[in-house]
Amino acid sequence: MTAYGVTPLSGLPARVTICEVGPRDGLQNEARPLPVEVKAEFIERLVDAGHTVVETTSFVHPRWVPQLADAEELLGRLTFADGVRYPVLVPNERGLDRALALGVRDIAVFASATETFARRNLNRTVDESLTMFAPVVERARREDVRVRAYLSMCFGDPWEGEVPAQRVVDVAKRLMAMGCTELSLGDTIGVATPGRVAALLGALTSAGIGIETVAVHFHDTYGQALANTLAALQHGVTIVDASAGGLGGCPYAKSATGNLATEDLLWQLAGLGIETGVDLRKLIDTSVWMAERLGRPSPSRTVTALAKENR
Amino acid sequence: MTAYGVTPLSGLPARVTICEVGPRDGLQNEARPLPVEVKAEFIERLVDAGHTVVETTSFVHPRWVPQLADAEELLGRLTFADGVRYPVLVPNERGLDRALALGVRDIAVFASATETFARRNLNRTVDESLTMFAPVVERARREDVRVRAYLSMCFGDPWEGEVPAQRVVDVAKRLMAMGCTELSLGDTIGVATPGRVAALLGALTSAGIGIETVAVHFHDTYGQALANTLAALQHGVTIVDASAGGLGGCPYAKSATGNLATEDLLWQLAGLGIETGVDLRKLIDTSVWMAERLGRPSPSRTVTALAKENR
Repeated sequence: MTAYGVTPLSGLPARVTICEVGPRDGLQNEARPLPVEVKAEFIERLVDAGHTVVETTSFVHPRWVPQLADAEELLGRLTFADGVRYPVLVPNERGLDRALALGVRDIAVFASATETFARRNLNRTVDESLTMFAPVVERARREDVRVRAYLSMCFGDPWEGEVPAQRVVDVAKRLMAMGCTELSLGDTIGVATPGRVAALLGALTSAGIGIETVAVHFHDTYGQALANTLAALQHGVTIVDASAGGLGGCPYAKSATGNLATEDLLWQLAGLGIETGVDLRKLIDTSVWMAERLGRPSPSRTVTALAKENR
Repeated sequence: MTAYGVTPLSGLPARVTICEVGPRDGLQNEARPLPVEVKAEFIERLVDAGHTVVETTSFVHPRWVPQLADAEELLGRLTFADGVRYPVLVPNERGLDRALALGVRDIAVFASATETFARRNLNRTVDESLTMFAPVVERARREDVRVRAYLSMCFGDPWEGEVPAQRVVDVAKRLMAMGCTELSLGDTIGVATPGRVAALLGALTSAGIGIETVAVHFHDTYGQALANTLAALQHGVTIVDASAGGLGGCPYAKSATGNLATEDLLWQLAGLGIETGVDLRKLIDTSVWMAERLGRPSPSRTVTALAKENR
C-alpha cells in the first residue's frame, strides 16, 4: 500500500498508536444491533490486521445503549491476544466490577468539557460526573488497570458554541489528577480546525499534562479530521483514535457523525512513513465485510477508493 | 460560520485565493450535460458568494468533452464582474482564438508530469504537448492574458506509480519558462500525503519557481486533500483549487474522484482566520441547489452537515 511513495515530514513522531474504536464507538449507534458473534469476529479481524488497542464494548446500562447490552457475552467470546489492549467503557463501580470479573485490564471513563453535554450524555453536572468516576479510577489503578479518560466537546458544543481551551484544561487536569493514564480529546461534533488543535495541545502541556498521555479523537463531520490529526502529530501527539471504515458517531450529539476512518488515517501515516503496525489491506477487507453486515457502504474515502479498485 | 471560534496557526498566510473549478473541472465529467442556463446561474452564484476566480469552461474539442460543448454560448451569457477572473481551458491556438473573441482574459493549459497520462489525456508525449502549448502561451502573454498551467499526476499515476519530484520540477520549469503565470500542481488521483507535498514544493522553490505562482489542486480520493492543503499552506502556498460541493474529478484517470470540496476548504480556512472573501453559507446554498439539479447529494462533508442542520 505504499506504491505511491513514502516521504516523511520533519517534526512528526516515528510511530503512532491507533486506538481503534469501531466495535464500541462505531457500533453503539446502530439502529439494529449486530449479533454478538459478528462483533467478536470484527474485533478478531481488527487484531489480526495489527491493531494493538481495540475498544471492545461498554458497561453503560443497556437502557441507554442497548446496542452494547451483550458486553459480557462478547468479552466471554474473545481470546485476549498478547500485547493487545481491549479497553471497555465503564461508567461506575458496578461496571468496573463486571469488567474486572471478565479479565479486563483497560477501562475508559467518559467526561464532558461542557455542562450541557454532561447533562445530556451523563444526566449529571461535570462535577457530579467526576465525583462518580473518582472511585472507579482509584480502584482500577489499585488493580493496575489502565484508565483512559474520554473528554467530549473539547472544541465546540452544539448548545454552547465554542468551548474555551481553559475549560478543557480544567477538566483534563482533574481527570489526570484522579489517576487516569490517558486523555482522549474528543471533537465530538467535528468542528475543530488545526489552529484550535495546536492551541489546545499547547494549553494542556503548559498545564503540565504530558503530551505522551494525550490522544486525539476527531470526527470528520466537516472533513477536518485528518488535517487536525496532522496538526496534532506536529505537536507531538502519538495516540490517535479512529474507527474502522468510519463507523459511528455519538447518538446524543446533534450532527455528530463521522468518526475519522482508520483507513484514511492509515493512508496518511503510511505515506508519512509513520509506523502503526496495522495492515491497510486487511483493514479494508474488514470494513468491506462489516459494510455488508450493516447493509450500507463505508463513508471512508480510502475504503471507497480501494474497495472499488480491487474488486 | 465562525460560531466555533477562529484560531490562527503560526506560519500560515493571512489570505488565500481560491480557484473555484466547479463549473469546468466539476461538470466536465457529468453523464448528462446540464443546460447552459443552469451553468450560467451556477457561475453567477459562485461569484455572488465572493469567489474572485471561477474557471468557467473549456475549449477542448466537443468530441472529447461533450459536456462543455456549449462553451461559446455559456461565455456569451456571462456578465464579467469587475475584479473577478474567469479562466477557460484552452488546448491550442484555435481554442485561444475563440476564447479571445469572447473577451476571455485568463486561460489555462493542461500538461502532464507523466508520459502515460499525457498520452491518454492529450494523445501526445509530454514534449509534444509542451510544443503544442508554447505558441498558445506566447500569444496569450502578448495579449496580456494570464495563463495558468495545470500539471497533472504530480504525485502518483495509476499506470506509473510514484512520480518523482524531479520529473514534476522538469516539466514545471518548462511551463514557467514558456511564460505561464501560474502553476497548478494536480494530485489527479488523490494519493499524496503531506510529506510528499512539502518535498515537492521544496523542490520547486529550490528550482527557482516562486511559491506565489504555485497553486495546489488536491483530490480527496483517499481523504487526504485538506491535510495536504495544510502542508501546502505551511509551505507558503496562497492559491488553492477547489470545487463547489466537491463536484467532479477526471474522466480519464482511474479512481480519480473527488475534487476537494470548496466548503470543506472554507471551513478550515475560516477556522484558521485566513481570509478568502467567500461566504460559506451562500456557497452551501449553491451546492445544495446544484445537487438538486444533478439529482445526487454533494460528497462534501461540510455541505452534508450544514444542509442537514439548517433545513
